[in-house]
Amino acid sequence: MKKCIVLKGDIIWTESPDGFRYQENGYLAVEDGLVRGVYASAPEGEYELLDFTGSIIAPGLSDLHVHAPQHQFAGLFMDEELLEWLNAHTFPYEARFSDTGYAEKAYRSFVSELGSGATTRAAVFATIHRKSSLILMRQMESAGLRGYVGKVSMDRNSPDILIEGTDEAIAEEEAFLEEASRFSKVLPIITPRFIPSCSDSLLQWLGDKAIKDNLPVQSHLDENLSEVEWVRDLCPWSRSYADAYSRFGLLGDMPTIMAHVVWPTEEEMDLLFKRNVYVAHSPSSNTNLRSGIAPVRRFLDKGIRVGLATDAAGGSSLSMLRMVTDAVQVSKLRSRYVDDSDKPLRFSEAFYLASKGGGSFFGKVGSFETGYDADIIVLDDGAFPSVLRSELSVPERLEMHAYRHSEAPVAAKFVRGERII
Amino acid sequence: MKKCIVLKGDIIWTESPDGFRYQENGYLAVEDGLVRGVYASAPEGEYELLDFTGSIIAPGLSDLHVHAPQHQFAGLFMDEELLEWLNAHTFPYEARFSDTGYAEKAYRSFVSELGSGATTRAAVFATIHRKSSLILMRQMESAGLRGYVGKVSMDRNSPDILIEGTDEAIAEEEAFLEEASRFSKVLPIITPRFIPSCSDSLLQWLGDKAIKDNLPVQSHLDENLSEVEWVRDLCPWSRSYADAYSRFGLLGDMPTIMAHVVWPTEEEMDLLFKRNVYVAHSPSSNTNLRSGIAPVRRFLDKGIRVGLATDAAGGSSLSMLRMVTDAVQVSKLRSRYVDDSDKPLRFSEAFYLASKGGGSFFGKVGSFETGYDADIIVLDDGAFPSVLRSELSVPERLEMHAYRHSEAPVAAKFVRGERII
Repeated sequence: MKKCIVLKGDIIWTESPDGFRYQENGYLAVEDGLVRGVYASAPEGEYELLDFTGSIIAPGLSDLHVHAPQHQFAGLFMDEELLEWLNAHTFPYEARFSDTGYAEKAYRSFVSELGSGATTRAAVFATIHRKSSLILMRQMESAGLRGYVGKVSMDRNSPDILIEGTDEAIAEEEAFLEEASRFSKVLPIITPRFIPSCSDSLLQWLGDKAIKDNLPVQSHLDENLSEVEWVRDLCPWSRSYADAYSRFGLLGDMPTIMAHVVWPTEEEMDLLFKRNVYVAHSPSSNTNLRSGIAPVRRFLDKGIRVGLATDAAGGSSLSMLRMVTDAVQVSKLRSRYVDDSDKPLRFSEAFYLASKGGGSFFGKVGSFETGYDADIIVLDDGAFPSVLRSELSVPERLEMHAYRHSEAPVAAKFVRGERII
Repeated sequence: MKKCIVLKGDIIWTESPDGFRYQENGYLAVEDGLVRGVYASAPEGEYELLDFTGSIIAPGLSDLHVHAPQHQFAGLFMDEELLEWLNAHTFPYEARFSDTGYAEKAYRSFVSELGSGATTRAAVFATIHRKSSLILMRQMESAGLRGYVGKVSMDRNSPDILIEGTDEAIAEEEAFLEEASRFSKVLPIITPRFIPSCSDSLLQWLGDKAIKDNLPVQSHLDENLSEVEWVRDLCPWSRSYADAYSRFGLLGDMPTIMAHVVWPTEEEMDLLFKRNVYVAHSPSSNTNLRSGIAPVRRFLDKGIRVGLATDAAGGSSLSMLRMVTDAVQVSKLRSRYVDDSDKPLRFSEAFYLASKGGGSFFGKVGSFETGYDADIIVLDDGAFPSVLRSELSVPERLEMHAYRHSEAPVAAKFVRGERII
């Protein structure tokens, strides 16, 4: 017999970037983990009714890029730029994950905070450490979250405390993928840190492996000007940073996420479009590390796939609702200072990117259309004072909640129909 | 007999923008509402000990510019720019404050949220409505907050629902000042909305009145490009927007706050410096309304006085801790995109602006030096998970708290020695 639940409340979602769809005081029917439909009145049939009257019911959000080991120091060392920040703080902190006891504790705190927010899916960087990466996968799966975790590959230009030999990197990745096959909700993903920290032979092996074993790929691209320059020096044979990944089979031969993409050339954007690569737009991190503001309007105009990402700990928050408003905000500054013809993102567009936009990397995720995975968050905006609340439409209430209370825990959360809060 | 209290905990403050001073596990002694000193061990004498061991004890923050009536819709209508946003939303919502019953309710929600955060002093815009403005003063004073409230003056270029005749504006301001004299902690401030909404004769009267009655002044300056252009048309006889205020005696003849100052000329900056005018830097609002990023580093280099401000509802948050991190963040984007020689604000500098920088408008406020008003906030950062917390210095914990938990209510708050949370 099918398992049916129906959630009652103020239901809102985006099917396209053009605007919200919503049903005030409506019914969201879920059958065997999938959305059956949204209704204005109680549907027929047998089901368990979950009454969230007065609360907002929205799709779960997808964090397309986050470094789990860095979450511990999120909000610190924000007076620095990318490369010095990596060397002075990030690498030493990541090195601690050679200790699985530390990893158990630190990842528990990460998973707990991720679990309490609006995120239902995430594409996560762990560290080079196989055992700790598997601990993270187990913890995320136990918490009911879904997504991808990558054991990070890095065999050059890295400190002694956080580097592998090329053979070791390959052997450890093989072993990681083997052991990771026991998980069913949190899956492995090929994860070269970025070009500067992976030798050509490691990159080639990772690209081949992804294609052979049918695995997705995640990495960093065009984040910071000094990094882009460095890659130019490291890969004189490539037309661009994106092209370098491409030559190793790491740019869209398999489903691919590239984080940041703040400084792409026209040619790189064309390549990202052709290869169906997902850009993980990380507005908070790109601001904190003084990287810049990614040209998201241009990506959308070109048809490039875009999702949003917290990128802890370049970003200081794990809140995807905060990323929605951050994405709107930086787009306004970009349109003011970089290109006045780049229209700022509207709130509904940014919400689309955080839900269905990024969610599509994980399948039919991030919308309430029939057949979509029932990833659902319930936001209790009644707890917060506004005399005007009773006058507001559901989209206005969602906007107000996102701007004012992005840090507030969600009241309930479902991942593919399974309730985890 | 003197009333003495001592707070025990991790004490931190800024005496200059150069960096933090702090005393881990220290003692902050308060005598009759004033700071006596910070000590490494328990001071001599009789006092009540308040034990906040493990929590951060910092100066209360000063919000130099906030529109109390707009707080109700903070976080809404963020897809628009200043002038359309004013006409479509702000003015109609402000017009409701002709109803004192509405004002009682709406201001209660504003004061409650302001009271629960890190703010101890604020310079507040009410509306044109005298009675409602007095309600706000009463509520703020009852809540133990201190600062200034201005009945807004506006007699031109405003909708019928929110405009006064010039004579009426003058008579109502006279009556407001008369009735406001019954308050002792929340004081009145002369508040022309901005040049476009005040006739020359009203501005002249307000300037004369401020000087005659020894009253401070607050208004808006150089917020948005279309506004600046409008003022140029309205005041062809002035050298600049700032000069226009100046000619009416509204630019530093009395202590003056000018909000925003995103687009000042060199000459205007020189004038602000010479007249000791405070700039209320509103990073969140200036981003939301696509106004731009104020040149704060230039202000500091020139010796102009700067404080931070939430500017609800251009800003969507009443959190001054959020303003500290927002100020750092937008300064990075300014240095990236506008002027690479403008070094970004460091966290300690932004914290200084929010505490002693803006606090000095209210007197000896915002520091823990001897003789300063004992405005104190206690932040319970132990409630939030970070495995690393025990390794962090007090400044690092403050930074982490500000970036990650700016929305969290403060654990305790004192204004001039009086405990209000």
